[in-house]
Amino acid sequence: MSDAAEPRTPFRAVVLTLFPEMFPGPLGHSLAGKAQADGLWSLETVDIRAFARDKHRTVDDTPFGGGAGMVMRPDVVDAAIAGSYPGEGPIVYLTPRGRVLDQPLVKDLAREPAVTVLCGRYEGVDQRVLEARGVLEISIGDFVLSGGEAAAIVLLDAVVRMLPGVVGKTESLEHESFETGLLEHPLYTRPQEWNGIPVPEVLMSGHHARIDAWRRDQAEDITRQRRPDLWSRYVAAQKQEQEGRSQ
Amino acid sequence: MSDAAEPRTPFRAVVLTLFPEMFPGPLGHSLAGKAQADGLWSLETVDIRAFARDKHRTVDDTPFGGGAGMVMRPDVVDAAIAGSYPGEGPIVYLTPRGRVLDQPLVKDLAREPAVTVLCGRYEGVDQRVLEARGVLEISIGDFVLSGGEAAAIVLLDAVVRMLPGVVGKTESLEHESFETGLLEHPLYTRPQEWNGIPVPEVLMSGHHARIDAWRRDQAEDITRQRRPDLWSRYVAAQKQEQEGRSQ
Repeated sequence: MSDAAEPRTPFRAVVLTLFPEMFPGPLGHSLAGKAQADGLWSLETVDIRAFARDKHRTVDDTPFGGGAGMVMRPDVVDAAIAGSYPGEGPIVYLTPRGRVLDQPLVKDLAREPAVTVLCGRYEGVDQRVLEARGVLEISIGDFVLSGGEAAAIVLLDAVVRMLPGVVGKTESLEHESFETGLLEHPLYTRPQEWNGIPVPEVLMSGHHARIDAWRRDQAEDITRQRRPDLWSRYVAAQKQEQEGRSQ
Repeated sequence: MSDAAEPRTPFRAVVLTLFPEMFPGPLGHSLAGKAQADGLWSLETVDIRAFARDKHRTVDDTPFGGGAGMVMRPDVVDAAIAGSYPGEGPIVYLTPRGRVLDQPLVKDLAREPAVTVLCGRYEGVDQRVLEARGVLEISIGDFVLSGGEAAAIVLLDAVVRMLPGVVGKTESLEHESFETGLLEHPLYTRPQEWNGIPVPEVLMSGHHARIDAWRRDQAEDITRQRRPDLWSRYVAAQKQEQEGRSQ
């Protein structure tokens, strides 16, 4: 990790897509846009179609074995990677078949010097080039998108905000979602009474220990109700910690 | 559901955001952009800041009970909803605390006449307005974004492609990811031999039953290896189906 005395080389994001006009999109504004303007990261968009070899600029073809839709050709995708890979960092392919993105994986990617993101369109990409290039397959969730571009924007937004210097000290990264293994407690701000509903009294008490306990209770309640999967993991982790203490 | 004889009213998406300049972004191109040009859906972007009442156009304030970051005010968010809600369809708030988005939820949303999407920024939105407005909280995954905008683009991309008439018949919606409860089998296209690697022989055989069996085996293998959670559900569903048959 870098520190203030040793400025880090800007993080490089390279996006391979059939729709370069979709970028930077939201990544050109707000936090990610400002971080790019500040030189903390760079975004290079590569048009896969520029690597097609025939006069029609063909990038896809029908699947062997039959079936609906088209598949992106291995030779074209491989040429696009060969022509744009920055020489370091993983090549990520966004696909529902991939490892499910979570915050630990986001942090791992933010520690890389560069990430190359391959956006699929149509039914997907020929399997051989994914294997030949050792591509890291990542899924942002169990739903189907029209292509990898929207997923790439989500992935890069999440990664960029974890780069050193992007999020200011006032917006602590330490007390946010998933750091405790729980969903976050509810939030309240001014006005103190709104629409006839007051803010929970404990939050006005000034007793920090009571406020922390209330927030922890709320976070536990909502996690148990909404996310049994996270709750099981949290309970197991708590149990392990207690056993560790009693030894 | 509509059919060809009875054209459906265009699906309405209303996005409430502090960064209207982030839209349409990728939704203005390719499949979603074409569907919008064809009148199958519309996208209205609403600037939440326009509903702030003071001269500084304040939309957020510090959290009661202390803590880092800022919280979006309930009165401003409520005014933005009151001023832009299309009168039908759910109000969705994108947050890591929400119900995890999956393809069945995508399909449910695509059957609505409209969806209003509230994009949070800073730490989040005051809890009271979420409850008062009966907001549907949705999470696109266990990771943290700089705001709800990138998640809104993913949500709308997924929903729009499920609207009737958006995806052509050649790109079947029926044999795609998650329809079988399994991850998809690998895909291959021309050239038949690439980089010294031939396409799996069975795919060149022309025996449809053998090809289907091979694809099913591949889909089962990758699901078992990569997604024990999906695999358990699939095995349970298969078992239930067999029990149903033997009764």
